[in-house]
Amino acid sequence: MKAASMGFVLLPLLAGQIALAQATPSQSEPSPAVPALEDFKPASSNQGGKEFPQVNSEHRARFRIVAPRAQSVRVLEWGGIALTKGEDGAWVGTTRPLDEGFHYYRITVDGAEVPDPGSKSYFGAGRWGSAIEIPALDEDSYAVKDVPHGQLRQNLYSSRSTNTTRRCFVYTPPDYDKDTGKRYPVLYLQHGAFEDETGWGNQGRANLILDNLIAAGKSRPFIIVMDNGGNNFAGGPRPAGGPAPGGTGGAPGRPRFDFSAFAKIMNEELIPFIDANYRTIADQPHRAMAGLSMGGAQTKQITLANLDKFSHIGLFSGGSIAANDPALADPAAFRQKVKVVFVSYGGKENTATAKANHEALEKLGIRNTYYESPNTAHEWQTWRRSLYQFAPLVFQD
Amino acid sequence: MKAASMGFVLLPLLAGQIALAQATPSQSEPSPAVPALEDFKPASSNQGGKEFPQVNSEHRARFRIVAPRAQSVRVLEWGGIALTKGEDGAWVGTTRPLDEGFHYYRITVDGAEVPDPGSKSYFGAGRWGSAIEIPALDEDSYAVKDVPHGQLRQNLYSSRSTNTTRRCFVYTPPDYDKDTGKRYPVLYLQHGAFEDETGWGNQGRANLILDNLIAAGKSRPFIIVMDNGGNNFAGGPRPAGGPAPGGTGGAPGRPRFDFSAFAKIMNEELIPFIDANYRTIADQPHRAMAGLSMGGAQTKQITLANLDKFSHIGLFSGGSIAANDPALADPAAFRQKVKVVFVSYGGKENTATAKANHEALEKLGIRNTYYESPNTAHEWQTWRRSLYQFAPLVFQD
Repeated sequence: MKAASMGFVLLPLLAGQIALAQATPSQSEPSPAVPALEDFKPASSNQGGKEFPQVNSEHRARFRIVAPRAQSVRVLEWGGIALTKGEDGAWVGTTRPLDEGFHYYRITVDGAEVPDPGSKSYFGAGRWGSAIEIPALDEDSYAVKDVPHGQLRQNLYSSRSTNTTRRCFVYTPPDYDKDTGKRYPVLYLQHGAFEDETGWGNQGRANLILDNLIAAGKSRPFIIVMDNGGNNFAGGPRPAGGPAPGGTGGAPGRPRFDFSAFAKIMNEELIPFIDANYRTIADQPHRAMAGLSMGGAQTKQITLANLDKFSHIGLFSGGSIAANDPALADPAAFRQKVKVVFVSYGGKENTATAKANHEALEKLGIRNTYYESPNTAHEWQTWRRSLYQFAPLVFQD
Repeated sequence: MKAASMGFVLLPLLAGQIALAQATPSQSEPSPAVPALEDFKPASSNQGGKEFPQVNSEHRARFRIVAPRAQSVRVLEWGGIALTKGEDGAWVGTTRPLDEGFHYYRITVDGAEVPDPGSKSYFGAGRWGSAIEIPALDEDSYAVKDVPHGQLRQNLYSSRSTNTTRRCFVYTPPDYDKDTGKRYPVLYLQHGAFEDETGWGNQGRANLILDNLIAAGKSRPFIIVMDNGGNNFAGGPRPAGGPAPGGTGGAPGRPRFDFSAFAKIMNEELIPFIDANYRTIADQPHRAMAGLSMGGAQTKQITLANLDKFSHIGLFSGGSIAANDPALADPAAFRQKVKVVFVSYGGKENTATAKANHEALEKLGIRNTYYESPNTAHEWQTWRRSLYQFAPLVFQD
């Protein structure tokens, strides 16, 4: 979903008291219109010991690339930042104030699109590449704190339907290994298009969000399973008619993606693997699914077609459920099976359909939660906050 | 240890029937002396869907970097490879035949040292950066196979001595969650200098090596703990008098590094954390330590100073134990406590001291194993093979 999200970070925004005009993709910004405050610090997303990129208190990012013989060094995001060469051979440039949270970015050196050697590597936008973390007011919710920590476990499992060995990550809550007689509910949590099973455990910070919620007594401990939902299209074609950026709609019952291969993996391979290898409560009331963007679309399709398996549904920037969806034909039956319907978007996304659907479902007598992340777009800060809001609601039986 | 190892991959080598002269760092190789066989395939270390870098059956690597406006694109390893610009704006170059196994590398674009966007990201040489996997005759031993797989678990734990939250990875064998009454021996397995706790689970393939050995009935199932041994020096100073590349010696009892901070973490924090959170057999006969390069030096220091805690010692390209080491002052007592002493090197390293020490210990009546990895240097293929040889020897009581 990141290729789609490039457009969103160009929306006009306010940060502190400084208003800036909207940038366009063709407009380069060698320097900000207003002088930046000089309180820059290395980004927390950097490699250890790397001084750049940096972030200041206005949420501007400053990049520095050592390229003594280059003719042009640019950052491709945020309207395009043409860095300026200093006397020391290093190229430097500063963005306008950016949204809080985590943003993928790319640099080019004389036309070569390469990762910034200052950044750690994150998988998104179909590649392992660079990203920058902008501090957020709510960053305490996903910080590494001195609380009991769960484990993030890499699992390899055999998939008959694809004839491959697949990988998934599983979060187990802090007390999982303390009482081996105890069983736990399970949330299946999916990444977006052009991302993979590493997203929620790395930039999504799902493990830290749950550690912190559980330590605060705000969430019941549960297991989270993060698998590869496919359709990353890295190096390959995108599906015809792929999802509109931030789109919330699509005619009910007419999916724009065919997720049947992943649905088969989930239902026939992944869920049985998890139930066989973890101390799950292996029934419908204790199984949830949520996902972001494309993962939300998968969640909607897979849960609504398998209400005998799932009781909790979370769609993060990934569509909403219309009142005329065939799955709601019998609202009382739906109410009886589905305990939580949660839909969220960033405030900078197109939220009209989701809000309308939220109200229509309420009128049908189907309690559902709509959450909007303040001042964020189709990006990870929206989805971290969505998980933080969603987790306390689930498995409250 | 990778900064130190740069010298080793420049040693003269034979691959197939093609002998090549030794390259020097200043000598660039725009094309191989002998035309390369044109059976290049994408390297297994690449990002998904990336066609380059590639490897052919002679173990030559071919790089391709799209940099249409660059004046110079180079690979810095293997004597320096000056890539040549094609009409399509992409720069291409081919190495001489390389050693089997896993090699870090760097590219420069007009003087900017950046990761190759074709490679996945690996931590080594003090950075997250590029690497290339050269197929090996024994690659089956660390391949992903359709066998029962253990888990690789990320753990966060609180460290009082450093006032930080630390991370370690723990491999649990395939049957770990099947019988929750069973307990397991533990191997503490350390990375080298300028590497971190991700090395053994990523490029080291420790989990796959154990999965395969256990499936073949060649190794007893045990837990492996991979922590951060510090001294990565990323962005910081190296210690005065750091280790000689591949050095095996050092006067007995006179360590060249001060590993006391890590020894304190291991003895007072890590081992208690592991024993509290995993079903270990928490005694000396069932606790091993091994490490590569600097991790071998740490292993030697920590085990010999704590023979009440460790019964199995593995030094992979990381020194050996001299017959006049104070820890061997009473050979009978040492024999009684230490069940396995294993020392290994790559055949291209300086192995004289290790071999002499091996024989001297045998004369003392201390059974010990010396293993030499054929045709490899101070690199991961040596250490993968060392683990493959070491694992079947340990915990055979």
